[in-house]
Amino acid sequence: MSNIPLDPQRLWDSLMEMARIGATPEGGNNRPALSTLDGKARALLARWGQAIGLTVGVDRLGNMALRREGREPGLPPVLVGNHLDTQPTGGRFDGPYGVLAGLEILRALQEAGTVTRAPIVLVNWTNEEGSRFTPPMLGAAGAMGVIPEAEVLTKPATDDGTLYADALAAIGWAGDADPAALRNAAAYFEAHIEQGPVLEAEGLDVGIVVGGFAAERGMVTVTGRESHAGATPMGMRRDAMLGAAEMVALAEAALPAHGPDGRLTISRFAIVPGADGVVPGGARFVLDLRHPSRATIDALLAEVDAGFAATAARRGLSVAREPFWSFPGLRFDATLCGRLRDAALRLGIPHRDMLSGAGHDAYHAAACMPAAMLFIPCHGGLSHDPRESISPEWSEKGLRVLADAVIATAQVSA
Amino acid sequence: MSNIPLDPQRLWDSLMEMARIGATPEGGNNRPALSTLDGKARALLARWGQAIGLTVGVDRLGNMALRREGREPGLPPVLVGNHLDTQPTGGRFDGPYGVLAGLEILRALQEAGTVTRAPIVLVNWTNEEGSRFTPPMLGAAGAMGVIPEAEVLTKPATDDGTLYADALAAIGWAGDADPAALRNAAAYFEAHIEQGPVLEAEGLDVGIVVGGFAAERGMVTVTGRESHAGATPMGMRRDAMLGAAEMVALAEAALPAHGPDGRLTISRFAIVPGADGVVPGGARFVLDLRHPSRATIDALLAEVDAGFAATAARRGLSVAREPFWSFPGLRFDATLCGRLRDAALRLGIPHRDMLSGAGHDAYHAAACMPAAMLFIPCHGGLSHDPRESISPEWSEKGLRVLADAVIATAQVSA
Repeated sequence: MSNIPLDPQRLWDSLMEMARIGATPEGGNNRPALSTLDGKARALLARWGQAIGLTVGVDRLGNMALRREGREPGLPPVLVGNHLDTQPTGGRFDGPYGVLAGLEILRALQEAGTVTRAPIVLVNWTNEEGSRFTPPMLGAAGAMGVIPEAEVLTKPATDDGTLYADALAAIGWAGDADPAALRNAAAYFEAHIEQGPVLEAEGLDVGIVVGGFAAERGMVTVTGRESHAGATPMGMRRDAMLGAAEMVALAEAALPAHGPDGRLTISRFAIVPGADGVVPGGARFVLDLRHPSRATIDALLAEVDAGFAATAARRGLSVAREPFWSFPGLRFDATLCGRLRDAALRLGIPHRDMLSGAGHDAYHAAACMPAAMLFIPCHGGLSHDPRESISPEWSEKGLRVLADAVIATAQVSA
Repeated sequence: MSNIPLDPQRLWDSLMEMARIGATPEGGNNRPALSTLDGKARALLARWGQAIGLTVGVDRLGNMALRREGREPGLPPVLVGNHLDTQPTGGRFDGPYGVLAGLEILRALQEAGTVTRAPIVLVNWTNEEGSRFTPPMLGAAGAMGVIPEAEVLTKPATDDGTLYADALAAIGWAGDADPAALRNAAAYFEAHIEQGPVLEAEGLDVGIVVGGFAAERGMVTVTGRESHAGATPMGMRRDAMLGAAEMVALAEAALPAHGPDGRLTISRFAIVPGADGVVPGGARFVLDLRHPSRATIDALLAEVDAGFAATAARRGLSVAREPFWSFPGLRFDATLCGRLRDAALRLGIPHRDMLSGAGHDAYHAAACMPAAMLFIPCHGGLSHDPRESISPEWSEKGLRVLADAVIATAQVSA
């Protein structure tokens, strides 16, 4: 157990100070990626880093790397990171908690005068949320080679079409470091709020995130025939809405046979023409299916597609499902997860292993290095919501577990 | 059987000539109520009426009454009518068929030199469709006292807010006759396309419309809780979308036990927030229920409401249904229906009794006088669609049945 003087109150105060940048009347944060407010948040982080002697690097994608040198500077560093951008209706903790918990570890190391064997680098990834530039996690994807750098730089903003590169230059945070340099690291740690209700409901303070759910998201299009809602007997209709409702119910009913962990969300649903007096001739909905196992998702989708086809045939409809996002699932590094788990055990902090159902920068990092994540609870599972909140106790416990694992890794890293 | 020289080709030619006013590239008509195009259609009808000696009256609501005097001018007249306005994506026959079939009867009477005992008045009602001024059938509603005249005159246009009275004056069709004068009539006949697929599917040429379906339309609001689509286990969700889909399926499943004639349409459906990654916290849909019997609708609604409440309780949701349109159903005059039926029998025209599921000016007329309607088929049940079409044979057969019943009524009317 490291005995460095972690200061949970200083972490909390930093969270509150960061949350003033882009604070919303509802108590949350609206700090879009590569906005002026994002620039202010970056400047504050850089100032804090410089105050404890960190070297502030910025790469061509705007990813910030704040480096604390190790005893053996040639060793690949241990990365700890997250993001400072938020959703438009975001909260104060989704992202900043991971960044500022990492900062607090470096502050405490600095105060203790402890020099770890390997360097530690605090990373602030660009555009994790994906609400201003799509897809999410662009900075990490570009750095880890998942999406080519040139492609990231030419993504247009969803609000005004500004290119990523131009928005980055406009706020003065286009650096000259090679983003690929971040791939040369010994490990990546990321602390995050759970964004779900499980830990709080089970009375636990920390989740060891051993991996991520597999996921598939697709657009289902149901086509029937418009007709007069008053004049057309039921047996002569080809009602796309009633067909789609049956399909949604069928997809939900297919889940339980595949265990308790499947997750189905119909995140969008629209009908055509959507006019009173007209039997809907078309329906479109997004079917989002997640499960710990990709094989189970594939089995579920085969079952669902067959059910949809049967429903459509019986009702005189046609149906097509077009996947537009797919994730094979992921398992984090067992050694790093073990260090987090051991730390929680040693500190006597109630915890469990779990999978994340959300996307994280850590998934991209895991493509290039051992990686692991830690969750702390958030009240009511609320996230991407101004009411998103955590308790100072959760903040402290997550910090202590993260610090132990990060420092242990930086001492043994080779 | 009347032996007046009906000219089905003349009726067809008039339909085609009328359809040139507001013709759309798709082959349909866009002739909104109280638009310049509506004014042109009215002028054409007036010209045709004057050419055969009809007296063209216009009331303060713009309803046109083209009168052919009877042998006993003091007798209440027999009305035959419909409308010349169309939906924005309307066809050529919904409305004009009824008006111009009535005109053809008067033309043939004129050619034959036949004077009926009671006067016959051809009526063109204002704003039947309701797409420019809401609700539909405003001219008839105002004339029959269902909606006060002053209220009709101050309805704003859905497109630019122009008041009914101002739009009417602007096209020069604000008359000075008292709309209430139309209530003093012996009978009202209306011919219309079916707007549904039943007659064509059954190989019939005429429907004797003995009444209208009862109907109720309401907005159902389902409220749950938004949460993260990846991070929230199914058992901890309060998903308004899955709840709403189950409710829709439940409403559909409730229908068959109440006979084959119930009709359910979910004409609008929307979810909140409708964003990928978010479990929907809200859903709203319009539930439109129709049945020949109002009592059955009430029984169905009680059943559906109870089912909705049970679904909501089981899923941790709340649900409310707010009716915003209700129609008690209606039965037309048995004597007038009998005259239409007898005419079809005498002429050897395949026909059936049926109820209309749509709304019609005739419903308002029925509040003040004996009324009845006749349907002819339309191809594929298509209506409110540029592809709306009828065959010249259907047009002719409807004309012959209508003429027989109208003339018979004008001869016996007292």
